[in-house]
Amino acid sequence: MSVHRNKIIVYLKGLRSSIINEFETLDPKHKFKLKPWTYDKGHGGGEMSVVRGDVFEKAAVNWSGVGGEHFPLDTKKGPFFATGVSLITHMKNPKAPTVHFNIRYIEVGDDCWLGGGFDLTPMGFEYKEDTQHFHSVAKSALDPFGLDLYPCFSKNAKDYFFIKHYNRERGVGGIFFDHYKTKDFAKDLEMWTSVGDCFTQSIMPIYHRRINEPCTDQDRQLQLKKRAHYVEFNLLYDRGTKFGFNSGGNPEAILCSMPPLASW
Amino acid sequence: MSVHRNKIIVYLKGLRSSIINEFETLDPKHKFKLKPWTYDKGHGGGEMSVVRGDVFEKAAVNWSGVGGEHFPLDTKKGPFFATGVSLITHMKNPKAPTVHFNIRYIEVGDDCWLGGGFDLTPMGFEYKEDTQHFHSVAKSALDPFGLDLYPCFSKNAKDYFFIKHYNRERGVGGIFFDHYKTKDFAKDLEMWTSVGDCFTQSIMPIYHRRINEPCTDQDRQLQLKKRAHYVEFNLLYDRGTKFGFNSGGNPEAILCSMPPLASW
Repeated sequence: MSVHRNKIIVYLKGLRSSIINEFETLDPKHKFKLKPWTYDKGHGGGEMSVVRGDVFEKAAVNWSGVGGEHFPLDTKKGPFFATGVSLITHMKNPKAPTVHFNIRYIEVGDDCWLGGGFDLTPMGFEYKEDTQHFHSVAKSALDPFGLDLYPCFSKNAKDYFFIKHYNRERGVGGIFFDHYKTKDFAKDLEMWTSVGDCFTQSIMPIYHRRINEPCTDQDRQLQLKKRAHYVEFNLLYDRGTKFGFNSGGNPEAILCSMPPLASW
Repeated sequence: MSVHRNKIIVYLKGLRSSIINEFETLDPKHKFKLKPWTYDKGHGGGEMSVVRGDVFEKAAVNWSGVGGEHFPLDTKKGPFFATGVSLITHMKNPKAPTVHFNIRYIEVGDDCWLGGGFDLTPMGFEYKEDTQHFHSVAKSALDPFGLDLYPCFSKNAKDYFFIKHYNRERGVGGIFFDHYKTKDFAKDLEMWTSVGDCFTQSIMPIYHRRINEPCTDQDRQLQLKKRAHYVEFNLLYDRGTKFGFNSGGNPEAILCSMPPLASW
């Protein structure tokens, strides 16, 4: 077991709680409900936290930490441990975008690495100032660790959050990195926590601006169609979903990113 | 090009039209709208026919016939031609089940084979008499071609229409066969058209019984949840969807099996 593991778990659970606290300020009448689960194909488990409210039609902020004998992706072999926080929002107001955030730490055999990112998906209504703000927060969090990181990670996001069958990005991008490990793992961890720490700053101002925008039934129909594309991405292409199902993860936890309502 | 190809295309288009005619008797105010598309990764194309009405919240009866240099599944290599009819219904009334039907003819290099099947998915309300009727029609269509066929094909359906992550069937089964070819291809074709010809008998009596059943808002919520499982199956496991996307097919045609509304 890596020396980092326990410290990382403490960080992740703390981050999860502070994100939930911030989100609850937007929708004070509805609290996230925590639901623990255990990983029956190995050891560990997770905690889902889901809210269905007036502002967040559905949002999930999940922590998990699972381990087992065989890493479930074919990139690497050996016993593994994976822990992370994964988050998604589906907003009631069509003018408020969906946001996705995930950071994860993975050990396989003697190796370990970091991954993460966040991306923004407008549900039919794109606001330049929102996109700019979102990207600028990501850039500010990464620049202290190397000016090459933001350009690289935002390109990764463009490539990763891409709906192949429509030949277009699922939203307006963000940042994404995987299998991240340099010679200085302490610095890598600092970069990674910087990404985690900046997340609420990236999205909260956007939600303050958008959750009370006026909208029509037609706007709602457009939102439901856009959510369908989100479903398609998650089930057809997302590696997290694949990892979850391949490792015999809890389907309820894996699918809690799915929208409350979508239309085709 | 196989000697059978043109005859098969004529059969498939005729079957498509007769199914649409029968379906329209249930919802006379709403007609299926035909929309042709061309396959830009090779030759051929298809015709979608979709209705959004009062009885069929959404239904699609599609014909396609596409060919190209490289068969898009890795089971077989060579230039290919694939033609089939594919159908799905999403009923307004939660008591009326979703039905799926598909028959297809595939040529790869000098080889060719048949496939097909249909299966029934109650949306939260299972009626024994419906399930029995559905299976008995399938059995009657297959028995003249060998008493082993129905037991085998209905087992295939149990195995194929299975939602791995919930460890259960997606519905109440039906029949399924793939890569079908015996030494007597003329007889194989007769069996295959027998499956096509019996389809409306398998579902129409069920719809006559169910489309006017009384139902509550709670029934509707359950229906929308069950539809979500259908989406999960189609995007995570269905070979037709995989074939479609791998062959660069038209996403609108591939995804027209998706429900008009689903909830998670």
